[in-house]
Amino acid sequence: MLSYKTILGKIQHELENLDFTRKPEELYEPISYTLSLGGKRLRPVLCLMACDMFGGEIEDAVPAALGLEIFHNFTLLHDDIMDEAPIRRGKQSVYKKWNTNVAILSGDTMMALAYGQIMGTPGNMHSRVFQVFNQTAIEVCEGQQYDMDFETAQNVSIDDYLEMIRLKTAVLLAGSLKIGAMIGGAGTEDAENLYRFGENIGIAFQLKDDLLDVFSDEQKFGKKTGGDILTNKKTYLYLKAFELAKGETLETLNILFNGNQNNDTGKIKRVVEVYEQLNINQVAGDLIDKYYQRAMSFLEKVNVDDSRKMELIKFAEGLKGREY
Amino acid sequence: MLSYKTILGKIQHELENLDFTRKPEELYEPISYTLSLGGKRLRPVLCLMACDMFGGEIEDAVPAALGLEIFHNFTLLHDDIMDEAPIRRGKQSVYKKWNTNVAILSGDTMMALAYGQIMGTPGNMHSRVFQVFNQTAIEVCEGQQYDMDFETAQNVSIDDYLEMIRLKTAVLLAGSLKIGAMIGGAGTEDAENLYRFGENIGIAFQLKDDLLDVFSDEQKFGKKTGGDILTNKKTYLYLKAFELAKGETLETLNILFNGNQNNDTGKIKRVVEVYEQLNINQVAGDLIDKYYQRAMSFLEKVNVDDSRKMELIKFAEGLKGREY
Repeated sequence: MLSYKTILGKIQHELENLDFTRKPEELYEPISYTLSLGGKRLRPVLCLMACDMFGGEIEDAVPAALGLEIFHNFTLLHDDIMDEAPIRRGKQSVYKKWNTNVAILSGDTMMALAYGQIMGTPGNMHSRVFQVFNQTAIEVCEGQQYDMDFETAQNVSIDDYLEMIRLKTAVLLAGSLKIGAMIGGAGTEDAENLYRFGENIGIAFQLKDDLLDVFSDEQKFGKKTGGDILTNKKTYLYLKAFELAKGETLETLNILFNGNQNNDTGKIKRVVEVYEQLNINQVAGDLIDKYYQRAMSFLEKVNVDDSRKMELIKFAEGLKGREY
Repeated sequence: MLSYKTILGKIQHELENLDFTRKPEELYEPISYTLSLGGKRLRPVLCLMACDMFGGEIEDAVPAALGLEIFHNFTLLHDDIMDEAPIRRGKQSVYKKWNTNVAILSGDTMMALAYGQIMGTPGNMHSRVFQVFNQTAIEVCEGQQYDMDFETAQNVSIDDYLEMIRLKTAVLLAGSLKIGAMIGGAGTEDAENLYRFGENIGIAFQLKDDLLDVFSDEQKFGKKTGGDILTNKKTYLYLKAFELAKGETLETLNILFNGNQNNDTGKIKRVVEVYEQLNINQVAGDLIDKYYQRAMSFLEKVNVDDSRKMELIKFAEGLKGREY
């Protein structure tokens, strides 16, 4: 089994070798820039890990892995426009560094480049890989639409929220695993179980992200906490707090999230106090555990020797336990 | 041979049968809206005509034809944001009717749906069709980038402009023909010659568009003429006029295109006068003829009976002679 470190190194190397010195430079420079910003490379890593798990040649899964990473970065380019997010991985986002038009068009080009990589999967596997990828791409767009809709929606339920993060985040992680598994020679049932593993890990991952945005050590997290609170984002923590709060606590929450807060630090501090009072940290942690356990139950069903699952288990544990 | 009318009817019918009653509605409604706005349906028509020309079953080319039309409409959604064009086919463009975010995301989804259709090509042809489509998609993005760059560029040559319209407009028409031909069973050389036919027809088509924007009967054209003049767009007419103008005429052009014109009608009228003085109408008409003839020379090389080329020739003549 290849280690996480070896696989990540392979991905980094392959990403660096992609050649974007094409014309017009105005189109390709933002693409190089985006892909050079780093990030966890979760999707390609999962893809290659899954391939390796079934004894496949990871070389065969490299084009798909690159396609998945390019696609993910395309979504970031467009999401940053929609969310008006000026910073991405500590650097200016593309729409901010260049402009909105550049971010739209470079993003579009990345989507086409991603499809090109996906179809570069060798052998006779590319049509099946394409189907999984294309379905996933559409679902990611649907998830982003729900995310935007929820900004103004009045009645977002926790189930709505979980379905949104499933589409926006989890299906691409799940699809990456499934595609890697297929290329590695997995049978239909194994590939499907690995997909379900990824889907549940993905939801846990996003819930952990929500939690870290509020309850993390800013030094380790690498950015200010409380961003979701300031923007009144309807995260799991927000929705659960409103569900649990009663009487005066509910009133406080309503005031904090609906009033015009001039003092950002004060707002964050007071919301965190309410969350702590309601034990939201614990409740969210329990839900993360639930999704994590469910993920593991799907991984258990996969018909390969336990020793071949170890890298993936370690990786999933790392995501669950992460502090940034 | 199927007539143009039969083929267009088939396309319209298939487009109407596409089902976008999916959730979230906010994502799919703008897609239905865009595809229902009409338009010439040039790309799918060319695709089916090419398939039919080689004796193929047009049913086999329908998914690709739909993919090409959906892709074209995706580019319009994003182009309208970038060009700040509030009107499309006499109706509000998507970013205007909804907002920019909706236009970005519905556009992205259309791109994925287009790829899905392309890969729905039956038999073992879809990988080759995909390659042509994907290359074309990237080139269309490159063309749009050049188009945007030219807005602020100081030295745009006529060759630069022709290369830009080749990428932005011609390659998709050419690709539509090539894809249809491939599905219809054409050999490599025939498919390539049909591509070159389309490329040249496409450039002629765009030059004709530029000409109609200035010298058309507003009643027949269906919109105000002179839009390109008002926005100082560096079209072939503009670039050729600057190339031919000398002395006082050149000075007049400089003033007209660089000054702050408060009177739109006055600016258009005076630019048209200069264009007429320089005989730009005729010069542009000659260039259109040149591309048209070149297109025909490629069509002649295609190894099918002349009678099978008639529908395509009639169609190309229609595009060349059109007054709107």
